Amino acid sequence: MQVVATVGRNEALEKRIQSEFPTVQFTFLKKMKEIGENRYTAEILVTYGEDLDEKLINEMKNLRWIMVMSAGIEKLPLDAIKKNHIIVTNARGIHKIPMAEFVFGYILQYAKQLPLFKKQQSEKVWNRKVHLQEIYGKTMLVVGAGAIGSQISRYGKTFGMHTIGINRSGKENPDFDATYSLEQLNHILPEADYVISVLPNTVSTNKIFSRQQFFKMKKEAVFINIGRGNAVDEQALMEALEEGQLAHAFLDVFEKEPLPADHPFWKSDKVTITPHLSAISDMYLPRAYEIFVKNLWNYVNKENNWINLVDLNRGY
Amino acid sequence: MQVVATVGRNEALEKRIQSEFPTVQFTFLKKMKEIGENRYTAEILVTYGEDLDEKLINEMKNLRWIMVMSAGIEKLPLDAIKKNHIIVTNARGIHKIPMAEFVFGYILQYAKQLPLFKKQQSEKVWNRKVHLQEIYGKTMLVVGAGAIGSQISRYGKTFGMHTIGINRSGKENPDFDATYSLEQLNHILPEADYVISVLPNTVSTNKIFSRQQFFKMKKEAVFINIGRGNAVDEQALMEALEEGQLAHAFLDVFEKEPLPADHPFWKSDKVTITPHLSAISDMYLPRAYEIFVKNLWNYVNKENNWINLVDLNRGY
Repeated sequence: MQVVATVGRNEALEKRIQSEFPTVQFTFLKKMKEIGENRYTAEILVTYGEDLDEKLINEMKNLRWIMVMSAGIEKLPLDAIKKNHIIVTNARGIHKIPMAEFVFGYILQYAKQLPLFKKQQSEKVWNRKVHLQEIYGKTMLVVGAGAIGSQISRYGKTFGMHTIGINRSGKENPDFDATYSLEQLNHILPEADYVISVLPNTVSTNKIFSRQQFFKMKKEAVFINIGRGNAVDEQALMEALEEGQLAHAFLDVFEKEPLPADHPFWKSDKVTITPHLSAISDMYLPRAYEIFVKNLWNYVNKENNWINLVDLNRGY
Repeated sequence: MQVVATVGRNEALEKRIQSEFPTVQFTFLKKMKEIGENRYTAEILVTYGEDLDEKLINEMKNLRWIMVMSAGIEKLPLDAIKKNHIIVTNARGIHKIPMAEFVFGYILQYAKQLPLFKKQQSEKVWNRKVHLQEIYGKTMLVVGAGAIGSQISRYGKTFGMHTIGINRSGKENPDFDATYSLEQLNHILPEADYVISVLPNTVSTNKIFSRQQFFKMKKEAVFINIGRGNAVDEQALMEALEEGQLAHAFLDVFEKEPLPADHPFWKSDKVTITPHLSAISDMYLPRAYEIFVKNLWNYVNKENNWINLVDLNRGY
């Protein structure tokens, strides 16, 4: 049984998996270009899902399973994969931990005024007259109550926060203290101390956060966007911040990325900019391998108990 | 039944407690100086414990219970209080939430490199090549595994950290994954990614963190002190940081406070200074009142079921 992996080299991870499966033959490649004759023998392929085409799939006569080490499968040659009855699994869900941690980095930085202390240190100022908040008892509203939003809520609950989730249908999500539908957003916004968008980029999420929504927020509210930039009317946000309709915005994503140099966000002390990396983490590959290892046990033992099996007809 | 409170005015809290106990007479004073004739009628006193003397206690013939809205009772006229059989309760335990939150502010600021993004924003730089860590899977060592340390550990566990507590005896504390005694500190130090001192200032905690301890730490380790400054040999810490024996120090407390202007910590980019305020919070008074309210129910209903009853002979 041969596994070919094209997800970048990582010696520690490779050693570990080889020792865990001594009877499996592993071939670790930097790039798919190096596959050569392995294409005829590989039974399992570990890939980011962007280096495959129909021709290669048709040549890989022994291929039974593709493990995609990311969430998206839109670049896979799906028709050829279906025709050859190849199983596809992916690594969906591995972003939730780094992203939820990142959100609490933002929130605690704000509540504890950490940038102010950095400034005080640079000026050798010992000043204790600083207004520090707790996050305990505060209300967080997570718009987009999926896997990432639920992780954020679980952390929030441990900190004693009241957590409200918004999803499309309003279907109850037990990870939240309360769940509402997207239609109810405007009614819930005035309750939140922290409003967190985890919305994906779809036609129906365009500018969900516009003038009306920012004006519904508490004047002390903090807005956080780690989803996609299209969900925010950036001009309306800048105006609402300048008018004091909300207190601060932490933004990891933008309508246009990189954020243009002349964008007013850069200079606003009510906006904190991070360059679209809330999901980045040194644990990305180890965690994706974790899913692969569990699925490899499953494959080796013929248990048909897959994690993250992709339904090729639905596309996820 | 009259309650006299000298803990600063807070209209919202006063209204709430008055409405919860309509039959109790509340007298809210800015300062004890204003007590006047109330000294003869007050049955309950709510104080920070620094505005009482023996003479006043002896005059307060109706006084049955003193609620001290802080942790320390060392400034109370204890002999007069004992002689008059007055009950004392305090507000110990109310620091744990803000302090544990503060620690995670430090930790996440470090793991997510938030100050770097602040700098990048000031220079309008969109740079995603930043090494971001997760705290998930990391090991935290809390030296001083009491109420505050346990709160830190509970948050840490939710984030998927491995938590180790150190207390004097090594007695097991179920809030930690593992507990060791102070004597075992040097053996455990090499395992920790985050070393957090919550030690109080006593003779036996003097310079517990000295050259030897810093050299036992991982080179990537982060040291945090929110306990007391006496636990750290500051010169040894500065040297160890300069030599790369550990990565960073977050310090809220110091041998001498305010930190002297010529101290090398101010200028080190491996040291983050905050001016002894990890416990400060806008929830301090509300939370102390919460304890008072529960005890007042207890007192009114004669249930003898006190929270934080102080043993005047032991002094805590």
